[in-house]
Amino acid sequence: MNLKMLKEQVLVANLDLPRHELVTFTWGNVSGIDRERNLVVIKPSGVSYERMLLEDMVVLDLAGKQVEGALRPSSDTATHLVLYRAYPELGGVVHTHSTHATAWAQAGRPIPIFGTTQADYFHGEIPCSRLLTPGEVEEDYEGLTGHLIVETLKQTPILTMPGVLVANHGPFSWGKSAEDAVHNAVVLEEVARMAWLTGQINPAARPLPDYLLEKHYQRKHGKHAYYGQTKA
Amino acid sequence: MNLKMLKEQVLVANLDLPRHELVTFTWGNVSGIDRERNLVVIKPSGVSYERMLLEDMVVLDLAGKQVEGALRPSSDTATHLVLYRAYPELGGVVHTHSTHATAWAQAGRPIPIFGTTQADYFHGEIPCSRLLTPGEVEEDYEGLTGHLIVETLKQTPILTMPGVLVANHGPFSWGKSAEDAVHNAVVLEEVARMAWLTGQINPAARPLPDYLLEKHYQRKHGKHAYYGQTKA
Amino acid sequence: MNLKMLKEQVLVANLDLPRHELVTFTWGNVSGIDRERNLVVIKPSGVSYERMLLEDMVVLDLAGKQVEGALRPSSDTATHLVLYRAYPELGGVVHTHSTHATAWAQAGRPIPIFGTTQADYFHGEIPCSRLLTPGEVEEDYEGLTGHLIVETLKQTPILTMPGVLVANHGPFSWGKSAEDAVHNAVVLEEVARMAWLTGQINPAARPLPDYLLEKHYQRKHGKHAYYGQTKA
Amino acid sequence: MNLKMLKEQVLVANLDLPRHELVTFTWGNVSGIDRERNLVVIKPSGVSYERMLLEDMVVLDLAGKQVEGALRPSSDTATHLVLYRAYPELGGVVHTHSTHATAWAQAGRPIPIFGTTQADYFHGEIPCSRLLTPGEVEEDYEGLTGHLIVETLKQTPILTMPGVLVANHGPFSWGKSAEDAVHNAVVLEEVARMAWLTGQINPAARPLPDYLLEKHYQRKHGKHAYYGQTKA
Repeated sequence: MNLKMLKEQVLVANLDLPRHELVTFTWGNVSGIDRERNLVVIKPSGVSYERMLLEDMVVLDLAGKQVEGALRPSSDTATHLVLYRAYPELGGVVHTHSTHATAWAQAGRPIPIFGTTQADYFHGEIPCSRLLTPGEVEEDYEGLTGHLIVETLKQTPILTMPGVLVANHGPFSWGKSAEDAVHNAVVLEEVARMAWLTGQINPAARPLPDYLLEKHYQRKHGKHAYYGQTKA
Repeated sequence: MNLKMLKEQVLVANLDLPRHELVTFTWGNVSGIDRERNLVVIKPSGVSYERMLLEDMVVLDLAGKQVEGALRPSSDTATHLVLYRAYPELGGVVHTHSTHATAWAQAGRPIPIFGTTQADYFHGEIPCSRLLTPGEVEEDYEGLTGHLIVETLKQTPILTMPGVLVANHGPFSWGKSAEDAVHNAVVLEEVARMAWLTGQINPAARPLPDYLLEKHYQRKHGKHAYYGQTKA
Repeated sequence: MNLKMLKEQVLVANLDLPRHELVTFTWGNVSGIDRERNLVVIKPSGVSYERMLLEDMVVLDLAGKQVEGALRPSSDTATHLVLYRAYPELGGVVHTHSTHATAWAQAGRPIPIFGTTQADYFHGEIPCSRLLTPGEVEEDYEGLTGHLIVETLKQTPILTMPGVLVANHGPFSWGKSAEDAVHNAVVLEEVARMAWLTGQINPAARPLPDYLLEKHYQRKHGKHAYYGQTKA
Repeated sequence: MNLKMLKEQVLVANLDLPRHELVTFTWGNVSGIDRERNLVVIKPSGVSYERMLLEDMVVLDLAGKQVEGALRPSSDTATHLVLYRAYPELGGVVHTHSTHATAWAQAGRPIPIFGTTQADYFHGEIPCSRLLTPGEVEEDYEGLTGHLIVETLKQTPILTMPGVLVANHGPFSWGKSAEDAVHNAVVLEEVARMAWLTGQINPAARPLPDYLLEKHYQRKHGKHAYYGQTKA
């Protein structure tokens, strides 16, 4: 894959955010990475999705040095870069303020794993970070938000938990590619909505037992997966 | 009706799921049955609704043997087959993760019959299953999910209760045809949404009395039904 | 206005129900009346909005005798007729199962007048009926539903309260014409949604004081109204 | 900018209200001001957005004298004029009955600042006014609603708090232009929705700490802002 293809993929993935009703105005950003050249493509900051063009995409190296593009990159770029450096498996990262996932983040609560919908994508409850301290915010807000996500995930294999909530802020998600990361952002928003409703209907609702979590996660992602057409 | 017509009906019924906003991505499946030949047509697993074609439909016999189609059938096929074998009246079966019905399933609660909207289609509250045991999940997850539905419905005449919730998973529904089954899936999602709101407005809301349930159910489905144009 | 024009108006008003997202499938009906000839035009029963034609409209006299149209009228026709007979000011009547208004009806609660949005159309809280008794249901369900609405409204001038909830069933609304009745059905659904949210945000929310209710109602509907362009 | 351009801007801004799903029927109004000539352009009262034309826009001076346009101005015009006179920084004002913001107004509660989404636009919680007294309503309802908004905002720099709730009525918002005011009305509705959900998920949810509020507000609006492309 050459850089032009990656830029096209990142553009399309960004345009998918409003199509899936994950963003209001410019409140979201998608990036993708070329692992051979270690170049990251990301949306420019504050540019309307309706007017976004291929040449607006910004290219940076993993240290954050801008190597292509006339516009300033997303203000959350440093967070994306930390995640790419920490997890070599990642091909794409997304940040949105999608309504229900953001509400859970504002509530400061992890999303319990109430059902198989979540288990088909997330290997357990979706964690919520602590708040950054005043010192951390002052030192390097966006970079340390990336490290906060790493801290929140602990030792979880990154592709088994393709999203997280940053407290009082909103969701980040990721995947094998920019497209896959957006797919997971859609799932995160939908399971956030279902989990809110579940708690409203039954405040004592219990999480899915482990054996059902394993069954669903593994039938889709395990060695012997039998969901879909492409896996063995 | 020949098999080609059934395949067209099942394709159209599957495409109706996103049109009625019952599914995210590929999270749903519709099947239909030809009772003369005992052949079931079902959607392939994990194929996008946007790209689904007539030739993608999978044909199986009632024992689950694939007799037509190059793709793997829906991962929930075994559940559909159990239902067709248990209930000769069924012509179509649907499974979705529609938002509000899934929330009730995750809450582990039957949907109370709060009003005439539900009584026009469902002869009482919509039951919610127990969880499968670890042994059942290991033995035959999808097949035993079908048997779980049969167990949950007890002796209820199947077409008087055209849907059920599988605990911590989501809704299944059915009808005289694939189209009718999707119709009932739409109703199930809407009554799930209304019942949630009803409980929010009045936690002590009481179910519809039996005489009103009977009146509404019978004016639409009884011997002397007078709703619509086609019944005597 | 001749009968053909009234039929066109009633058809358009019925088609406005799905356009305003007030109905699922065929769950709603609009009628209009020609007061000179005492003829009522109403939607046929159980006919899809997508295929409804001008010639499908059913014409009846105020006693319920069908004078035009090959199809059977809406199963709720008797309720409409009672309202036209009771209130000479009415030009149109609507029944829907719109989501939030139906939830209040299922909850068995009147919609409190929490704000000026409601006061712009409804002169106070929107009442909810009692349940019909078993005897009433058996005697004449649809006709006595009409009388129940009249009973629920007490002596309220009918156009100052253009809608009501029938307990465990759903909303009815009305107006000077079929179009006006649909307009009020849209308002009823929206104020039902806002009132539900208001109670969720503040369970102790208080109704609008009378002097503000009067101010808003009168600036739009009173002798010295100054809202809009057409009033003096 | 000449008056014709301002009229075009105000027309477009009004048409943006239904496009962003902020209004039902005619329940909203946008105005803009030409500060050189002290002329305000506002939507006419009760005219459908679907039929609104450039020549329908009404032009008034700051004292409320109509200087152009055949139609009667919005019934809320006096409120807009008070705001323009009180705050020379304002270029546009919007009033809507958008669902979630109106629910908070009906609940009589300020919208807590639960997250960075709100902090990106509002420098703290969004205040809710008291009710006008009977005497105030009688004396000059719309004008005193404007003064009530000024009273509610206290000494807050007007562009750091681009919206407010009028108790039991609904939201007003504003900005540097009519377009900017509508943008802020969209944000107000979305943060109102998120804040409602947050309180449902966690009734004990805590507001964003001040240092995070400052960080987000300043990175977008401060001297050293680095969000977007146009600021230094």
